[in-house]
Amino acid sequence: MKLLQVDTLEGVRKKLLAADGMPEPETETVSLSDAFGRILAEDIKTKEAIPSFRRSSVDGYAVCSKDTAAATDSIPVFLEVVEEIHIGHPAVKKIVPGTCAYVPTGGMIPEGADAMVMVEYCEMFDEKHVAVCSAAPFGSYVVDMGEDAGEGELLLKRGTRIGPAEAGVLAAAGAERVPVFVPWRVTILSTGDELVPVGRNPLPGQVRDINTWALQAYVRDSGMKTVKAAALVDDEELLEAEVRSALADSDLVLISGGSSQGKKDKTNDILDKVSHGGVFTHGLALKPGKPTILGCESESRTLLAGLPGHPVAALTVFQLLIVWLWREKTGQTEPVRTVARMKTNLASAPGKTTCLLVRLDWDGNGYVAEPILGKSGLITTMAQADGYVMVDMNREGLKKDEIVPVYRFS
Amino acid sequence: MKLLQVDTLEGVRKKLLAADGMPEPETETVSLSDAFGRILAEDIKTKEAIPSFRRSSVDGYAVCSKDTAAATDSIPVFLEVVEEIHIGHPAVKKIVPGTCAYVPTGGMIPEGADAMVMVEYCEMFDEKHVAVCSAAPFGSYVVDMGEDAGEGELLLKRGTRIGPAEAGVLAAAGAERVPVFVPWRVTILSTGDELVPVGRNPLPGQVRDINTWALQAYVRDSGMKTVKAAALVDDEELLEAEVRSALADSDLVLISGGSSQGKKDKTNDILDKVSHGGVFTHGLALKPGKPTILGCESESRTLLAGLPGHPVAALTVFQLLIVWLWREKTGQTEPVRTVARMKTNLASAPGKTTCLLVRLDWDGNGYVAEPILGKSGLITTMAQADGYVMVDMNREGLKKDEIVPVYRFS
Repeated sequence: MKLLQVDTLEGVRKKLLAADGMPEPETETVSLSDAFGRILAEDIKTKEAIPSFRRSSVDGYAVCSKDTAAATDSIPVFLEVVEEIHIGHPAVKKIVPGTCAYVPTGGMIPEGADAMVMVEYCEMFDEKHVAVCSAAPFGSYVVDMGEDAGEGELLLKRGTRIGPAEAGVLAAAGAERVPVFVPWRVTILSTGDELVPVGRNPLPGQVRDINTWALQAYVRDSGMKTVKAAALVDDEELLEAEVRSALADSDLVLISGGSSQGKKDKTNDILDKVSHGGVFTHGLALKPGKPTILGCESESRTLLAGLPGHPVAALTVFQLLIVWLWREKTGQTEPVRTVARMKTNLASAPGKTTCLLVRLDWDGNGYVAEPILGKSGLITTMAQADGYVMVDMNREGLKKDEIVPVYRFS
Repeated sequence: MKLLQVDTLEGVRKKLLAADGMPEPETETVSLSDAFGRILAEDIKTKEAIPSFRRSSVDGYAVCSKDTAAATDSIPVFLEVVEEIHIGHPAVKKIVPGTCAYVPTGGMIPEGADAMVMVEYCEMFDEKHVAVCSAAPFGSYVVDMGEDAGEGELLLKRGTRIGPAEAGVLAAAGAERVPVFVPWRVTILSTGDELVPVGRNPLPGQVRDINTWALQAYVRDSGMKTVKAAALVDDEELLEAEVRSALADSDLVLISGGSSQGKKDKTNDILDKVSHGGVFTHGLALKPGKPTILGCESESRTLLAGLPGHPVAALTVFQLLIVWLWREKTGQTEPVRTVARMKTNLASAPGKTTCLLVRLDWDGNGYVAEPILGKSGLITTMAQADGYVMVDMNREGLKKDEIVPVYRFS
């Protein structure tokens, strides 16, 4: 009996980076509002300093700080108000000792002034003078020119996801149009004579197609794009034709099911025929996820991936290889994970990287990770999971009370 | 001088839940593919057991386990193969002692069989008999009917976000159409004479509009929908007209800027006029985020929120009040946070809930949180942050080496 020759997770990742003919993410320039949620394809630097002038962070009076050194509630300092700055307009007059100017929050601080006194500590004395009742230390409530970012300063790195703060930074930098990566276009083919569409009631022996749906949602969540998703009967010619017709407009072709060594497992043969130089991985030392097949077609630069038919295994391989590769190719950093204390001992399969679903409970001080056990890692258990822990192939498991990183699917 | 009457974070949250005339999320039914990323509006239960028949999780032979008890490599057990089950088709014959049937992965296990032997441990002896070289314990590689979920079992709760696993579960349950919440429709108005559009170079005293962009991205990331976003000059009549015209098709109107006590801060007066019963909050014991105004217009059921003009403060208030409220109203659970050890002592403002940006470094065992200090919490610092820590209003700060939860913006 022929057994699968397996690659380690680390080994297969190296192969994915080194393989010839792999898809490379393309870039495009889109409007700022179309860039939300996308991944930056270039570093973004400031064109000019932000802010480009000295601003007040309060409503109040711009003063020479030395003037106010002795000011108190009972013995205020009186200053002549020489100007009222209007928001959005330049300050005209220079502040000299004994004078001040009203500046609203965000307004321009006039030359000569070196501090702001909040309006709450001032009272108009007559039409031209204000009584300042509190000392304003040098620089207080002054946002210096370039304090947010200097001219030519790196604001956002290539590979950054454009969330709320990044959208704000891009707006501040005047980035009307933004260079972003074009999402990889993904074709998802689920194979199996047992599969029926989601709207149909399965007969004995039949099940509803799960993988095209779960993978489509995953493709979307990870910032890629599904161009086609279909469930196919087990037919070698049909599958080969579908794979070949997907090449032209797909960076990735995912085929789930048909990747183990059973009688109908022709995915390997087909991917071997279609891919340039044959498949380079058939079998992964990963639990779950062993029956994984990888190859690529170098002309269209399409990665061909045979994923396990089992939903949790398919999603695990998608996370650890496809999402990982997309992040690597686009310069994304690993997302923040959480940390938890293991609730129980957990045995793993030595010689394989093991990926285990856990549920997290907050015990007041931190999270406790409880493994979700189930002999076949069913899709419902995955929906109950808050994340997964990983056990290195050289370890035999995790110990109770051990502190472990917990990763999220996506 | 009139100072703001501030509410605590907890107090204002209670008011938001109790206020009359608040928007309530509506629900709609969409196709499964349109449901990706949406929030379930109802509990989802199974209509029938999943799987609806006994399935094999391996390629192999369905056997009576007792037959194989003594099977070894050197002394195999010979069984008659009475049927080859095809995937997607029912098993027809009953397995009795001495017989077996070939079953592919995912195939139906015939009646009478109680275990699977992997094909790797079997060898065809003649056309009708297989030599089994390994004992198959009772139930091995058998996925029982209903093992994933029983009939009528709760699969997904109202308030669940439909990610990859959830999409898979919905497909398994035959949910062709899915009840989800309609995203709140949000109008974003940024006010200030200093604001220029992102494409224009600011003159002295001017700055580019940041908040409409950052808030639009945030609205999108939190699963709501922007219906209009505009930057307006400071003009009381214009702002009032814009707010009134937004009511009909907005669940939320966010106005950033103009919410403190400066000369041009008319947002409060306008929201007071427009809202039913007047604004119920003006001032929040939150740092940053003090100048926050809340009211609601009960006829159109629109929440009116005046957010601070400062971008980080505006995003903080959006996170802690608006995202929080959307989650409460739709039954979403709090997302998994991470946990980190404080790198330094950190003083906060007693009497206020303090929200501090931190950068996270992984030190091999866990995260270390380093506060990002900057006197005015500039937008660039927010883009550098991995999250934020919160200091309770009754505490004076956080201690070095203290373990704290770290929250994400979104």
